[in-house]
Amino acid sequence: MLDIDKIRADFPILSREVNGKPLVYLDNGASAQKPRAVIDTITRTYEAEYSNVHRGLHYLSNLATDNYEAVRGKVARFLNAGTEDEIIFTSGTTEALNLISYGWGAVHLQEGDEIVLSVMEHHANIVPWHFLRERLGVTLKWVEIEPDGSLDPQAVIDAMGPKTRMVCITHMSNVLGTVVDVAAISKAARDRGVVSVIDGSQAAVHMPVDVQAIGCDFYAITGHKLYGPSGSGALFARMERQKEMRPFLGGGDMIREVRRDGITYNDPPMKFEAGTPGIVQTIGLGTALDYMMSLGMENIAAHERALADYATERLKGLNWLQVQGNAPGKGAIFSFTLDGAAHAHDISTILDKKGVAVRAGQHCAGPLMEHLGVSATCRASLAVYNTKSEIDVLIEALELAHDLFA
Amino acid sequence: MLDIDKIRADFPILSREVNGKPLVYLDNGASAQKPRAVIDTITRTYEAEYSNVHRGLHYLSNLATDNYEAVRGKVARFLNAGTEDEIIFTSGTTEALNLISYGWGAVHLQEGDEIVLSVMEHHANIVPWHFLRERLGVTLKWVEIEPDGSLDPQAVIDAMGPKTRMVCITHMSNVLGTVVDVAAISKAARDRGVVSVIDGSQAAVHMPVDVQAIGCDFYAITGHKLYGPSGSGALFARMERQKEMRPFLGGGDMIREVRRDGITYNDPPMKFEAGTPGIVQTIGLGTALDYMMSLGMENIAAHERALADYATERLKGLNWLQVQGNAPGKGAIFSFTLDGAAHAHDISTILDKKGVAVRAGQHCAGPLMEHLGVSATCRASLAVYNTKSEIDVLIEALELAHDLFA
Repeated sequence: MLDIDKIRADFPILSREVNGKPLVYLDNGASAQKPRAVIDTITRTYEAEYSNVHRGLHYLSNLATDNYEAVRGKVARFLNAGTEDEIIFTSGTTEALNLISYGWGAVHLQEGDEIVLSVMEHHANIVPWHFLRERLGVTLKWVEIEPDGSLDPQAVIDAMGPKTRMVCITHMSNVLGTVVDVAAISKAARDRGVVSVIDGSQAAVHMPVDVQAIGCDFYAITGHKLYGPSGSGALFARMERQKEMRPFLGGGDMIREVRRDGITYNDPPMKFEAGTPGIVQTIGLGTALDYMMSLGMENIAAHERALADYATERLKGLNWLQVQGNAPGKGAIFSFTLDGAAHAHDISTILDKKGVAVRAGQHCAGPLMEHLGVSATCRASLAVYNTKSEIDVLIEALELAHDLFA
Repeated sequence: MLDIDKIRADFPILSREVNGKPLVYLDNGASAQKPRAVIDTITRTYEAEYSNVHRGLHYLSNLATDNYEAVRGKVARFLNAGTEDEIIFTSGTTEALNLISYGWGAVHLQEGDEIVLSVMEHHANIVPWHFLRERLGVTLKWVEIEPDGSLDPQAVIDAMGPKTRMVCITHMSNVLGTVVDVAAISKAARDRGVVSVIDGSQAAVHMPVDVQAIGCDFYAITGHKLYGPSGSGALFARMERQKEMRPFLGGGDMIREVRRDGITYNDPPMKFEAGTPGIVQTIGLGTALDYMMSLGMENIAAHERALADYATERLKGLNWLQVQGNAPGKGAIFSFTLDGAAHAHDISTILDKKGVAVRAGQHCAGPLMEHLGVSATCRASLAVYNTKSEIDVLIEALELAHDLFA
């Protein structure tokens, strides 16, 4: 059992007030807050241990390089990757998925080839594939979700035909909280010679992830959702796939030699890391992953499951509110609309007056919104530091909003 | 006149020791250290003002968005851009130049078209153009430098022929310190319908920059060299050019609408900013630019000019040491080799024992190294917080290195 009071004390921002009320931060799906340890790592690095990394030979450069490169092993451990070389540092999942689109997709796909994806993908896992449609004439093949918001892995597998080259699927929906059986999908993809791309931006925050057990080719995580600094992230990329990839960003570190008439590229994964990287945010990501692993991903998942159960019960009591998605085993993400004319934006504004931070809008999921037949929802997305009493505050604030708009 | 003691006190790391000696940080060309104000901005943001930006409607999201978007105006002021819409946030100059290569170059260039660049470009301003050579059959046309390391703008202008579509030139060499007359080059380029790309990664740190006076199409700056956080940066991009650009990274923010069968893109500059951006590092960059503007770029330039003059004199006294490049008006960057067998790496290791941090190697400038006929140099690159007495320490340490290897 986690000591949530102790965990809350680790996050300085959670003790602040908003609009005269204690902050109830339920916008974790957009970005999580940072524990003291991460903030201290950033401060310490800039105050005493900062330099550019790699090619330097002086003390600070070696120190910063050691601290930076140590994070590759932490990410590998966090995702249970077989080797550190399968970890590419990125600025987040958006860059990671674009790296795959430009580095693998643009090289290996051609007109008429298909990419299979679900209707509940985040725009970051849609737009890079639309680029391949616009530029190469690749076809996007959309898989529907079930009425409860679940995604039948067999439906994804059945969608893979002889022209399918990639399957791009989220591990956890950022809108519905649906957890997808990406292991079944990745295995079927592998059997068919289809490359599997898993968007782990949400899932890795809330549950243990084992990329070897999943068996995917690519798995992307986002540092700022993992209680880490903004602008950090990493991509697990199976070495077999890395060897097939063209470089994406060009600059320092990803080359071995630059001549007037040509370039020799570095070995993977450095081949895909160009220029001065996000040094301090990557070091901070290492601290965030240490923090999560010290709490234990199973413990985090258990706490959030209890929260999700409680929230589900309490929200069920509001018969003028519709939660989108109730797939079995869903994560602690609740998107909802209220009966009547109240727009999600107005609801969120009222909640904000009570100190409750939720997101309102499309949540970067246009095709899903269209599928659900809504223009926008409010979304409360929970994290390890949230509590049942915060859910009570949310419910009270929702009741107020309902009264105001009734 | 700047009060350098006061400035030094603003940078916590400068009071530390390395190998039992006071740190003499002369690796600023690779990355600059951070003032207390920047570190405090990062800490304050994470402790009390953090959230994802844009689409949120709650208090913290609005606060973070306001703090983040305010930086666009600061960058515009720093570069004297005509409008904030001409500022695109990036993770640094490498990303910026790749954005131009993928977003403009890949769309508008074809086989046989030429890109003119100098032999003293940094790899970040070479590799993205090599990509276009490899992928589209574009020709790279190299302009030589003069024996003193200067670049004759007329030589660049003369290299622009009827097939030339882009000219990509550094404003200040990261190896030689050479300052280039990029205004003359940009004007000539404009007259010929050639797009001008200026790498301001070094120059913007050391001298006032006025992109309107320069008249270039693109001007890239690097946050971590500007006393700002790692992973921050910005690109000035003339609106005319932005309108001709294809999106580069796909994801949130850069779209207006995503459907199953298509996308509507956002207006520039948002069209070129995908996914959750580097929120906190961009806010920190704003503080760094405020810090520099409060010191005054003319004052910074004057201080560094005095330092450069002093360093030039002192280095001249070492008749067993060769400085690469002595172009008139060069910045405070000194690359050098020592007579005899001592490799640059060994020299830098000895300097490090005396607390002096310099870089040794190719400095991401392979073609320049080839041009100079050296495999590597040591580089001492100065910043606003450096002093004449630190140059004395460098000279002493060099004398020791010379004695050891003599």
